[in-house]
Amino acid sequence: MHHEQHVSSSETIRDIVIGMSDGLTVPFALAAGLSGAVNASGIVVTAGMAEIVAGSIAMGLGGFLAGKTDADHYNAELKREYEEVERVPDQEKEEVKQVFADFGLSGTLQQQIADEMAKDKDKWVDFMMKYELGLEQPNPNRAKKSALTIGISYIVGGIIPLSPYIFIDNSVQALYYSCAITLIALFIFGYFKSKLTGQPPVMGAIKVVVIGAIAAAAAFILARAINK
Amino acid sequence: MHHEQHVSSSETIRDIVIGMSDGLTVPFALAAGLSGAVNASGIVVTAGMAEIVAGSIAMGLGGFLAGKTDADHYNAELKREYEEVERVPDQEKEEVKQVFADFGLSGTLQQQIADEMAKDKDKWVDFMMKYELGLEQPNPNRAKKSALTIGISYIVGGIIPLSPYIFIDNSVQALYYSCAITLIALFIFGYFKSKLTGQPPVMGAIKVVVIGAIAAAAAFILARAINK
Repeated sequence: MHHEQHVSSSETIRDIVIGMSDGLTVPFALAAGLSGAVNASGIVVTAGMAEIVAGSIAMGLGGFLAGKTDADHYNAELKREYEEVERVPDQEKEEVKQVFADFGLSGTLQQQIADEMAKDKDKWVDFMMKYELGLEQPNPNRAKKSALTIGISYIVGGIIPLSPYIFIDNSVQALYYSCAITLIALFIFGYFKSKLTGQPPVMGAIKVVVIGAIAAAAAFILARAINK
Repeated sequence: MHHEQHVSSSETIRDIVIGMSDGLTVPFALAAGLSGAVNASGIVVTAGMAEIVAGSIAMGLGGFLAGKTDADHYNAELKREYEEVERVPDQEKEEVKQVFADFGLSGTLQQQIADEMAKDKDKWVDFMMKYELGLEQPNPNRAKKSALTIGISYIVGGIIPLSPYIFIDNSVQALYYSCAITLIALFIFGYFKSKLTGQPPVMGAIKVVVIGAIAAAAAFILARAINK
């Protein structure tokens, strides 16, 4: 029970990281790029909001359907493994033995493992799913929750770089504030993200800031070049 | 050799799918949204190109650094497992036994497996990495190749919905063409993507088209509402 809770909370954090990482970066860079080409903040806000809604739907809904596809795939493979265990048990035993042959266990021991595992069909199939096919059972509620978490995190992340353009009419002036608050937000975000994933936090934070800065600078230069 | 080639080509295809999926959807929806708010295709093209460069850098560079982080994480864990196998071999043996206890093998057999596996330290550590920690050895060249593939696929995908705006000045008229070619492109893309991942292709294609259409419609409605 404790273990499952741990997994579920770390998956939620992973989803927040996925959504917020892109949400902070892409709308920030888009707004910066447009600031280099148009002077009115109104267009930047319109484009930015359109991007945020498009990005959050693409990521959230895309993630939801990918999760559903994973679950369908898992269930189809599970059904097939149960059938194979009934129909060609010797072949399935060979597959179990092969897994252990790869780790250098002797033929005698491989055979014993296969024979003993075959006594409990559920555990046998469970083993094949995990170690032959590398598939983990998907949590049926994950897909929906994951989609919402990613989508909302993208929106929250995207609002931060866009907010100066809402309050400041001159888009170039708004850009300065947007750079300042977004690079700070990216640093804080990168710091905690790295801490959570066990990476050196300051180095991780710098990496996240650099990606955002490069994306924004490239978008700014390209948009200005197109408009000339 | 054959197996590795198979893995590598399927990873490339996965990267193309990741990049192109977002590349077709988000710039399409952003352009559609802006068309509902401004009449000039010039701004749509500028915003769209800024989005494509920002998105491709965020996804490509983000993927590259994530791959590097995975490799660092793997190597750090690998070092720790080698140390633990030297320092606390009995504890590590207990961990091997626990893996097999979970699959219902008898205590005697668990002990035999642990003893035999302990004879070859490389394979023992390899086992712990894969089955206790669930970590696969990352390919050192993957991160760079993956970043490039995702980034380029995003650009290729993004150019498709944007191309009508380059040739047609009236953005509302360009939107019709953009919808037509992008929804066709999403259908073709979704069809092959589903075929490659073993899903029903027509159903998969429809899902991809629906996500794109919802994202574009939402962006269009929101951008129009903001501009009023």
